[in-house]
Amino acid sequence: MQEITGHRLPVLAVDIGGTKILSAIISSEGEIITREYRLALADEGPQAVINRVLLAIDHTLDQSNMELCDLDSISIAAAGAIDYEKGIVTLSPNLPGWRDIPLRDMVRERFRADSWLINDANAAALGEHHYGAGRGVKNLVFITVSTGIGGGIIIDNRLYSGTSGSAGEIGHTTVDINGPRCSCGNVGCLELLASGAAIAREAAKRISQGDRSSLSEIMAGRIENITAEKVSLAAQSGDSLALEVIAVAAGYLGVGIANLVNIFNPEVIIIGGGVAKMGDLLFEPVRKEVSERAYQLAAQAVRIVPAQLGEDAGVLGAAVFAFQQGSG
Amino acid sequence: MQEITGHRLPVLAVDIGGTKILSAIISSEGEIITREYRLALADEGPQAVINRVLLAIDHTLDQSNMELCDLDSISIAAAGAIDYEKGIVTLSPNLPGWRDIPLRDMVRERFRADSWLINDANAAALGEHHYGAGRGVKNLVFITVSTGIGGGIIIDNRLYSGTSGSAGEIGHTTVDINGPRCSCGNVGCLELLASGAAIAREAAKRISQGDRSSLSEIMAGRIENITAEKVSLAAQSGDSLALEVIAVAAGYLGVGIANLVNIFNPEVIIIGGGVAKMGDLLFEPVRKEVSERAYQLAAQAVRIVPAQLGEDAGVLGAAVFAFQQGSG
Repeated sequence: MQEITGHRLPVLAVDIGGTKILSAIISSEGEIITREYRLALADEGPQAVINRVLLAIDHTLDQSNMELCDLDSISIAAAGAIDYEKGIVTLSPNLPGWRDIPLRDMVRERFRADSWLINDANAAALGEHHYGAGRGVKNLVFITVSTGIGGGIIIDNRLYSGTSGSAGEIGHTTVDINGPRCSCGNVGCLELLASGAAIAREAAKRISQGDRSSLSEIMAGRIENITAEKVSLAAQSGDSLALEVIAVAAGYLGVGIANLVNIFNPEVIIIGGGVAKMGDLLFEPVRKEVSERAYQLAAQAVRIVPAQLGEDAGVLGAAVFAFQQGSG
Repeated sequence: MQEITGHRLPVLAVDIGGTKILSAIISSEGEIITREYRLALADEGPQAVINRVLLAIDHTLDQSNMELCDLDSISIAAAGAIDYEKGIVTLSPNLPGWRDIPLRDMVRERFRADSWLINDANAAALGEHHYGAGRGVKNLVFITVSTGIGGGIIIDNRLYSGTSGSAGEIGHTTVDINGPRCSCGNVGCLELLASGAAIAREAAKRISQGDRSSLSEIMAGRIENITAEKVSLAAQSGDSLALEVIAVAAGYLGVGIANLVNIFNPEVIIIGGGVAKMGDLLFEPVRKEVSERAYQLAAQAVRIVPAQLGEDAGVLGAAVFAFQQGSG
């Protein structure tokens, strides 16, 4: 058991995603003292993003009138596979060019402060476990469904990160052996069938084929105008194409989650990420698939619930990770 | 960490399968002092099987000239879902009629000895972890491929049994969303496509359809004459139908294992059970699928190896479970 015990100084936590960088100062009670966003502009490559991360740390300190000596440590969550022992981002599908970047020690050396590095979905799992939808739960799986699909696993109240830091790659499990080919090299991956990108792509494809939808005008002949969020809005207004597309994606998600339920027999599955904001449109078909597909005892034992911390889950979890490292 | 420390009295371990009951006395060093088999005759229902288990315990004690006071405890592995807290076999697909059987306390009361109850695939996972192919490994998944497909998960050197004792139900994960319906209610289950029963069924089906094979004579018009073992023997003699059937099943198994590799990022996957005796015929296509399908880092990290303990894995693991309970 790794509990956060006693009074501790706050952690400066940074969450590096493919789109933006969120930095925050977080108390040992899980209170966000200050937060700021900036664009990641990940296409500019690793060094440019790293410079922005260092700048974000400086600026967050300034903004809060804090010094490094007022902090417990600096903790970074990054969208990529992590070598936890060495503190390295091994590679990242969402941060182009990132390969074997020793980010933990770069931060440690630049600021002369204790620092930590964790995968972003793993961090969100820890955040939800400690402060969100997974409080008090011993075994859970967190799934983030946004542009892609990722995950994090908590077993016996601890993050399980696997042998080379890539446990929880739920998005690239096969749900349809005859499905389309994924950029990861596999076929019929969950991410390819149930992510936000999949929802947007499928809606745009059907509109291009001439299916009627209130989204046709929004698309105006440009596929990139269709996003999962817009499909969700259309579905909420009763657009039948949008409803169908979401139901199909949610069905696939249900298959992937039923597999997790069979394998892990967890107490709770938490779904976060932008697509989870669809609410019952997503959760009802997912729960139905799981109750129909998963092994009866495991299906009865699991609760499938929305995440509670939104975009703060990553920084909160990065802070939990730092507090646990310090007390471990 | 639950280590077996210090000198301990031996455990009397019993492994109850759908076909046979194996009982053994096992030293704290993992040495099998005595073992005996008897048929389970599971079709006769729970009470008849339980009577045979109690008889097997008596007989094993007699055979070894040991008294109950010479034992640490009695530990039972059973083919079914287990409520670990209550020591109950909740239900079993392989033991007809078993539902909420308080087997641990029945044994405890009958023999007035400490007793323990564990799922048979979980026991085999513990056995292989302690004494077999998983020695010294922190995180592993054990898969047994025989008539059905089951599994057990070791995380951080400990058995992970899940919230209601059914973790590791790998056989009923979906690998083909458009596959055939399984008796569990799901569709396209791994067990339905890659188990020993699946191999025998597929070979018999193709022979019935007129495909040429050295197995045609053995079958002689009776589907039940074809077993996975016979298909394996035919394949080893170069029978092309047998080779094809095994390659297809192994391919499905590879898909299921690639999913496990993505989710768990384990150090080792151990494959046991009768079908694993096929050796390279099975392991080569499995390894190929995993290297093509699983996430690169995780695929590189994992070793996929045969089990080492054969039919003794269950009783050895049941003994480990007992020693851990005692010292926990």
